[in-house]
Amino acid sequence: MSVLTQSAEHSMSDIDLSRLESMVLAAPDTSHLLREDDNLLRQTFLNLLNHHHPELAHKINVIYALSRSWVFSETPGDFEMLQKRLEDLNPDELILVSSAFSQMLNLHNLSEDIGNAQQEKAARMGQVEMSTRSTNRSFKKLMMVNKVEPAEIFKALCTQRVELVFTSHPTQALRTSLLKKYASIRSTMERLHNSRMSPYEKLEALEDIRGQIQCAWRTDEIRRSKPTPQDEMRQGLSYFQETIFEGLPTFYRRIDTALSKIGQPHLPLSHNLFTFGSWMGGDRDGNPFVTPETTRDVVISARLTAVNLFFKAIERLMFELSVWRADDEMKAAARKILDRQQKDPSAIVGERKSRNYSEFQRVIPIMEPFRVVLSEVRDKLWHTREILQHALVHPSVNVKEALETDPEAYYTGDEMLQPLMLMYNSLHATHDDSIGNGRLLDVIRQVVCFGLGLVKLDVRQESTEHSNAVSFITEYLGLGKYSEWDEKKRMDFLVKELTGKRPLLPPNVDMPKEIANVINTFKVISELPPDSLGAYVISMAQSASDVLAVVLLQREMGVRNFLRVAPLFETLDDLHNSKQAMTDLFSVDWYREHINGEQECMIGYSDSGKDAGRMAAAWGLYEVQEDLVEVADKFGVSLVLFHGRGGTVGRGGGPTHLAVLSQPPGTIKGKLRVTIQGEVVEQQFGEQEVAFRTLDLYTSAVLEASLNPAPRPEPEWRDVMKKLSEVSCAAYREVVRGHESFIDYFQEVTPVNELGRMNIGSRPAKRKNTTSVDQLRAIPWIFAWTQTRFHLPVWLGLGEAFQALIDDGKKDVLQKMYANWPFFSVTLDMMEMVFAKADPRVAEFYEKSLVAEELWGFGKDMRERFEKTKDYLLAVIGHKKVLQSKETKFLQQKIQLRSPYVTPLNIMQVVCLKAVRQLEKTGKLEDKRQSYVPTDPEVAAILSRDPNSKKHPYEAAIEDTLIITMKGISAGMQNTG
Amino acid sequence: MSVLTQSAEHSMSDIDLSRLESMVLAAPDTSHLLREDDNLLRQTFLNLLNHHHPELAHKINVIYALSRSWVFSETPGDFEMLQKRLEDLNPDELILVSSAFSQMLNLHNLSEDIGNAQQEKAARMGQVEMSTRSTNRSFKKLMMVNKVEPAEIFKALCTQRVELVFTSHPTQALRTSLLKKYASIRSTMERLHNSRMSPYEKLEALEDIRGQIQCAWRTDEIRRSKPTPQDEMRQGLSYFQETIFEGLPTFYRRIDTALSKIGQPHLPLSHNLFTFGSWMGGDRDGNPFVTPETTRDVVISARLTAVNLFFKAIERLMFELSVWRADDEMKAAARKILDRQQKDPSAIVGERKSRNYSEFQRVIPIMEPFRVVLSEVRDKLWHTREILQHALVHPSVNVKEALETDPEAYYTGDEMLQPLMLMYNSLHATHDDSIGNGRLLDVIRQVVCFGLGLVKLDVRQESTEHSNAVSFITEYLGLGKYSEWDEKKRMDFLVKELTGKRPLLPPNVDMPKEIANVINTFKVISELPPDSLGAYVISMAQSASDVLAVVLLQREMGVRNFLRVAPLFETLDDLHNSKQAMTDLFSVDWYREHINGEQECMIGYSDSGKDAGRMAAAWGLYEVQEDLVEVADKFGVSLVLFHGRGGTVGRGGGPTHLAVLSQPPGTIKGKLRVTIQGEVVEQQFGEQEVAFRTLDLYTSAVLEASLNPAPRPEPEWRDVMKKLSEVSCAAYREVVRGHESFIDYFQEVTPVNELGRMNIGSRPAKRKNTTSVDQLRAIPWIFAWTQTRFHLPVWLGLGEAFQALIDDGKKDVLQKMYANWPFFSVTLDMMEMVFAKADPRVAEFYEKSLVAEELWGFGKDMRERFEKTKDYLLAVIGHKKVLQSKETKFLQQKIQLRSPYVTPLNIMQVVCLKAVRQLEKTGKLEDKRQSYVPTDPEVAAILSRDPNSKKHPYEAAIEDTLIITMKGISAGMQNTG
Repeated sequence: MSVLTQSAEHSMSDIDLSRLESMVLAAPDTSHLLREDDNLLRQTFLNLLNHHHPELAHKINVIYALSRSWVFSETPGDFEMLQKRLEDLNPDELILVSSAFSQMLNLHNLSEDIGNAQQEKAARMGQVEMSTRSTNRSFKKLMMVNKVEPAEIFKALCTQRVELVFTSHPTQALRTSLLKKYASIRSTMERLHNSRMSPYEKLEALEDIRGQIQCAWRTDEIRRSKPTPQDEMRQGLSYFQETIFEGLPTFYRRIDTALSKIGQPHLPLSHNLFTFGSWMGGDRDGNPFVTPETTRDVVISARLTAVNLFFKAIERLMFELSVWRADDEMKAAARKILDRQQKDPSAIVGERKSRNYSEFQRVIPIMEPFRVVLSEVRDKLWHTREILQHALVHPSVNVKEALETDPEAYYTGDEMLQPLMLMYNSLHATHDDSIGNGRLLDVIRQVVCFGLGLVKLDVRQESTEHSNAVSFITEYLGLGKYSEWDEKKRMDFLVKELTGKRPLLPPNVDMPKEIANVINTFKVISELPPDSLGAYVISMAQSASDVLAVVLLQREMGVRNFLRVAPLFETLDDLHNSKQAMTDLFSVDWYREHINGEQECMIGYSDSGKDAGRMAAAWGLYEVQEDLVEVADKFGVSLVLFHGRGGTVGRGGGPTHLAVLSQPPGTIKGKLRVTIQGEVVEQQFGEQEVAFRTLDLYTSAVLEASLNPAPRPEPEWRDVMKKLSEVSCAAYREVVRGHESFIDYFQEVTPVNELGRMNIGSRPAKRKNTTSVDQLRAIPWIFAWTQTRFHLPVWLGLGEAFQALIDDGKKDVLQKMYANWPFFSVTLDMMEMVFAKADPRVAEFYEKSLVAEELWGFGKDMRERFEKTKDYLLAVIGHKKVLQSKETKFLQQKIQLRSPYVTPLNIMQVVCLKAVRQLEKTGKLEDKRQSYVPTDPEVAAILSRDPNSKKHPYEAAIEDTLIITMKGISAGMQNTG
Repeated sequence: MSVLTQSAEHSMSDIDLSRLESMVLAAPDTSHLLREDDNLLRQTFLNLLNHHHPELAHKINVIYALSRSWVFSETPGDFEMLQKRLEDLNPDELILVSSAFSQMLNLHNLSEDIGNAQQEKAARMGQVEMSTRSTNRSFKKLMMVNKVEPAEIFKALCTQRVELVFTSHPTQALRTSLLKKYASIRSTMERLHNSRMSPYEKLEALEDIRGQIQCAWRTDEIRRSKPTPQDEMRQGLSYFQETIFEGLPTFYRRIDTALSKIGQPHLPLSHNLFTFGSWMGGDRDGNPFVTPETTRDVVISARLTAVNLFFKAIERLMFELSVWRADDEMKAAARKILDRQQKDPSAIVGERKSRNYSEFQRVIPIMEPFRVVLSEVRDKLWHTREILQHALVHPSVNVKEALETDPEAYYTGDEMLQPLMLMYNSLHATHDDSIGNGRLLDVIRQVVCFGLGLVKLDVRQESTEHSNAVSFITEYLGLGKYSEWDEKKRMDFLVKELTGKRPLLPPNVDMPKEIANVINTFKVISELPPDSLGAYVISMAQSASDVLAVVLLQREMGVRNFLRVAPLFETLDDLHNSKQAMTDLFSVDWYREHINGEQECMIGYSDSGKDAGRMAAAWGLYEVQEDLVEVADKFGVSLVLFHGRGGTVGRGGGPTHLAVLSQPPGTIKGKLRVTIQGEVVEQQFGEQEVAFRTLDLYTSAVLEASLNPAPRPEPEWRDVMKKLSEVSCAAYREVVRGHESFIDYFQEVTPVNELGRMNIGSRPAKRKNTTSVDQLRAIPWIFAWTQTRFHLPVWLGLGEAFQALIDDGKKDVLQKMYANWPFFSVTLDMMEMVFAKADPRVAEFYEKSLVAEELWGFGKDMRERFEKTKDYLLAVIGHKKVLQSKETKFLQQKIQLRSPYVTPLNIMQVVCLKAVRQLEKTGKLEDKRQSYVPTDPEVAAILSRDPNSKKHPYEAAIEDTLIITMKGISAGMQNTG
């Protein structure tokens, strides 16, 4: 060996070692799967279009090529050409082109989902490294890096619990039926990727996709009427029927496998890693369509769904467990059931016949003990269903009582669990584990998790509604006007009443409608089974009395299983003095002993973002959580924080993981309660594979947050944050409220005033012209700025804050904060994401086309701030361009891939806004529009679809296009998984 | 070129050309897939066994190796070793070993099914040549070889109809739950073969198979109680829910593709290639458990299943057809529905709420016209279901009337078809064909095929029951005893009454139970919807009056939609004078005009085979069919022959194809009605792929029988057949009835007397000792000889017949008959199949172990006849050994592959029979048996499973083993697909 190394050293000296070092092989890009599907779906759509409108298809093709060329190569000429092409589309084409691009965009998003699911599947068929750090990984990391013992992991999992609360989303853009069509396109695409198909089956699959795309193309994108809360509820329930109910036990099975791989036992049968809640039909905050009956209805129909799902599962079990071997307990139980049935076998048989059971109508022999026991479970489920249906039709029935007092009906999950465990233990006793751990184990876990309620409904109401109700009572009793008392007087009154026993109201007092509405809600609550109810959430909560008022009202209306009361502090001011409110609350001895050491608070920051800017709101929240936990610890109360996820646009990797990590350390002790919005529900549970991934992410996120909490922020970081949010808040308000031409600019450059036209969500939008931002709800405010791809509410004020800090030399502190503090890095990454999606050129295009000349200066100023803020942000996170780090580069491409679909929609929106506003100003159309009649039979049909609308066809065309572009752009801006 | 060929000629002369010619490359065998699965399933089972009983597993392994060695290499020593091993098993092991082999045999059969399904799938993924000639092939053959025009094929298909009638099988060996377990093992194996699975999923699949096999191992093979007709019915209905309902439209779709490939349009939407009938709950022949209520129940629950299936299908359609475009008719229809709903929308909504519809509870807007129309269909289905459930519980409700008179309920399929066609035409009018031809087309075809009845129930009753009923009436009216009148007097009476209008009985005459039972059946028929009923079948029919009596009873009891009456001629004598009976029948003018030119006759030959031997029975049937068709043509009546497929063991390629071809030409004019037995139903419809194959086979079989009928037999062939059946019949009877020691031999060598113990099927077996073959039912007679693998009833007498013919030089005629006459070749092939499965060495083993010495001569004589018959048979069909031709060789292997599993069961059966009989003779056990107590806890549990049986454990062990071996051997002898 020695001989060789010397000589070679000499002859190679003229090629120096260092140059050799730097030649790095380039890493290849892996998104060709994404492109492939994108191409396939787009081609299929264009072929369909070609079939119906050959001309249109090629126009769209050129528009797309021009739009791509502009997006990816930025030669100015392309934008003008693109603009010209779109401006001289006639109204017929405007509608068709806009909904074509909207379709293509949705199909494109679909192929992103498929790409993710494929990675997911690839991930499970052997571990390509890219999927997020799931549970397996967390195990490994915790054990290797953080030296956590496997037994500790097991212990942590045995006490960990995540509750996912489904809520409906106010701007759910896509109609459910379109959502479902895309879902079935997705699953057919999955089959195309994954299973081996015969040419016949491949043809049928492609044919099926065509049919679905054609169907989607034919379905009216615009929602013509508002969904009712019950609609939303049933829609939520469908996810349980399709993925969650069956998926959950399989997920547990895989966690067990993961545990056994680190030598740990499987999860205790009685422990729930997940439970599910819902707001649909319980959230009456600013939604008058949610009445006490509504709440009752949704609870009953959720229970009905649960009973149906279990009925089928039990029938399947009956069929499979034809085993004769059983231990003595099991035999005794079967014998007892048979003796009862033997008294009158024919009645039994007759009864089963009338129910038309699909199998086993006769008395089952003792030699099939499992079926004997299960047949009783089946009969009880059937009877439970009858009671529920009866209750659904007769609003006067007290559901709780009806179920509780009837021995033949199941009231709680435990009653049903008991026979199942009997069977499970019997199979274990007879060494038939491979049978017990089959479907029986799954059913046991479904009972433990979903019980007979399936989901727990939260009731949410605004604090003032309770004050008015209590005020009505005090006036009725002549004690004065509660709503005018100060906090102290209220507290004395409430504490006195709560510690006393006397009722306040005699039965049947007649009261005004609003008051009756509030009071009856409590009555309904008292008549519903407690395991169908979750928390009572008080929105706009301000003080301790808001909480006690609800407790009092519950007692007053005979609620025996009190609902825990979770105050929701929304505005910045309420957040600031929430600490005080909770201190007052916990100081009431009666209350502490009433909650016996458990309190839940909800925090969400939709409104606070609107009036203080995002950064100040985020920091405000962070501090509040720490304060609340601190207050709770002082009173020896364990606090659970309930996170309402407003319309945040989270960043890559899914909000959950980092959202969890970015909470103040110690606020998540293995317990997490979080809301999931309508659209996100479809994304996270619409499809089996992705549902696994969702559960997987939550499990590992919470596990890590408990066993390996993020480090505590240093004092210096707090000061910097304090300064950051004061300066940004001031700068934000100085523009949004201080600048006199902001409102005008806002109303001209965005479609905020035209928003009302899309009736989105079941909540009425306040209608009158906005003269200041305050009357605006948070949702439209953000939505409007998303349309112009400027996202002003997210970054406004941040630039000034960064500047102030960097000027007195805090740059390196900011960088350290980004490098080591998840809260800070998550917030900044989210902003980077927004900058990546923003395109000021489009915003400027809106301005030049819609805003009066004298306001252009203001716009230019805003864009300069945009660039400045972006540069500061990039400087702090140390990227040269947005989304430059390795694991986000891929994300950056995804965003760019959508842009060629979104840009034409922006241009068409501007065209429509110009027309709509010019229409309102002059109130009439100049001549050539006046004479417009749709030539394309298709368009004619579209415009005359709504028989009872008198709008002139041109106006209708413009309006529909406007709505389509709003949905399309919103679909283009949604965050990607 | 010329230069080369010469010179080479010279230099190669020393290797002569001829030797080169004869070297044929050997074709490799293709059944390794079958072996692979067989190994996997056997290994999994043995591993399970190994886990629970290590000792036993290895014993079984050696037994299997010895059994294989004996089967495949025939060295005598192996049999003795095998016998010795099995004889010194103690009772514990006897039970375990026998049910282990029974399990392995069932698993082996399973792998045969999988092999077929795999070939099926391979067949459709590109054409390996081996599958039978399916529809595509028939098209090609008909067009190329028979020069049939494609348009003719289309026309033939447009009038072709096959009705499959499900009946329960008297000896259904496997219990349904075991059947289903094997079915789910099969489908998991399919998934293992066909879809790409991640290692996780593969693990879960293998785990699932283990669980199922373990479950099967744990399920008691022996059926302890008799199933009721309703049980059988529900079991039959499950095939519609699982494969037929969804599979049929997909099958039509593929026929359409096949048609378009030969340039023909697709099938008319209104035409049914298939309809389905049932006997379950209608067949009361010798089954006292089938009462009028039973019939009513099964009809109602079949309708309930139909309504449920359509309810789900309509809900799915509602969800998908969110299209707004519709033609004017469609809009008008939607508008009409909405106007009615607008009168009181809240009632509508309330009503839907109470029904807890999963979607669309509110009034649907006019802009979704398809959903509006479908919502009405849904409401009507819901209401129909209510009426049916109400009828199920209140036996007094007249179902027909309730459905017919209620405008909100559907009475016939057409009422539901009407709105569906409206939608279909609308989508066609708006060029949205790819939507219309999606799921909507499938639902339309389901309605056209299944209607609201799902299946049509036949009612079957024995002729004497009607004579007694009529006799009761005539005595009641003092007209004398009908049952003693001769045929002519009966006919005059019946014709007089039928042409008259006067009622015979006043209402509410009290009558004895049997008579009431018959009369009430007709009453029930009059109160059921006609589209749930098929034919009224008279078993043991003998004369025309049997038919008219039923027509009279129908009229008497107020049946308005008369059921067509199909006489079933069973015994050879009845068959011989069925021609006369039908002539008399058609001579009645009133009757001809009553049936307006359509008559159905059923033919099946279970009993005739028993008393004349198979060949005579087959030929008898053949002639009868020709006679009946001839009689019908004379009276201008078109006759449909209804084939009852007795327990024929058909031969390879499935009975249907050749069974159809072997019917006399011209008896199947595009119409076929045939029964399918319980077990065969599982085989032919248990699994989606095989269900396609079944429908495929019937379609092409009937198509070819119509467009390319088999040639007519020549006169000389008829004479030969006449002689063949006379000689065989005489020789058969001379042994079965003439030989005085036949009965003794029969009872000693077969388990015919021990058969009673397996309560198989819902029909009571007549119990007393048999002194002659006559009191024996046909089923046990055949079953008994199958157990010893001698199959005497099939071939007995055939040898003498062949000898007689060959002696006067008819050998070449016989060979020509085999080569050109499907009927003859099918019958002989079936016999060859039986010889292939028979094993006289086993039969001899039974004899030497169970029969008294002085009867051995008789046995030896029977075996010589067996060999002689086999040689004659082979000489006629020109094979050197059984199943030697190319396409049956593969079959021959399948049979052999089972033999190693069956032989040990035979030996154990002999061991048990010896013990059982020795027990009966001496009535007590000699000492070491007396002291037997099960040591294995497992066996102890098995034997004490039946708490109320006082049998000594040894006796119980022997008996159970006996039953297990009977089932196992029967499973081993069943024909293979």
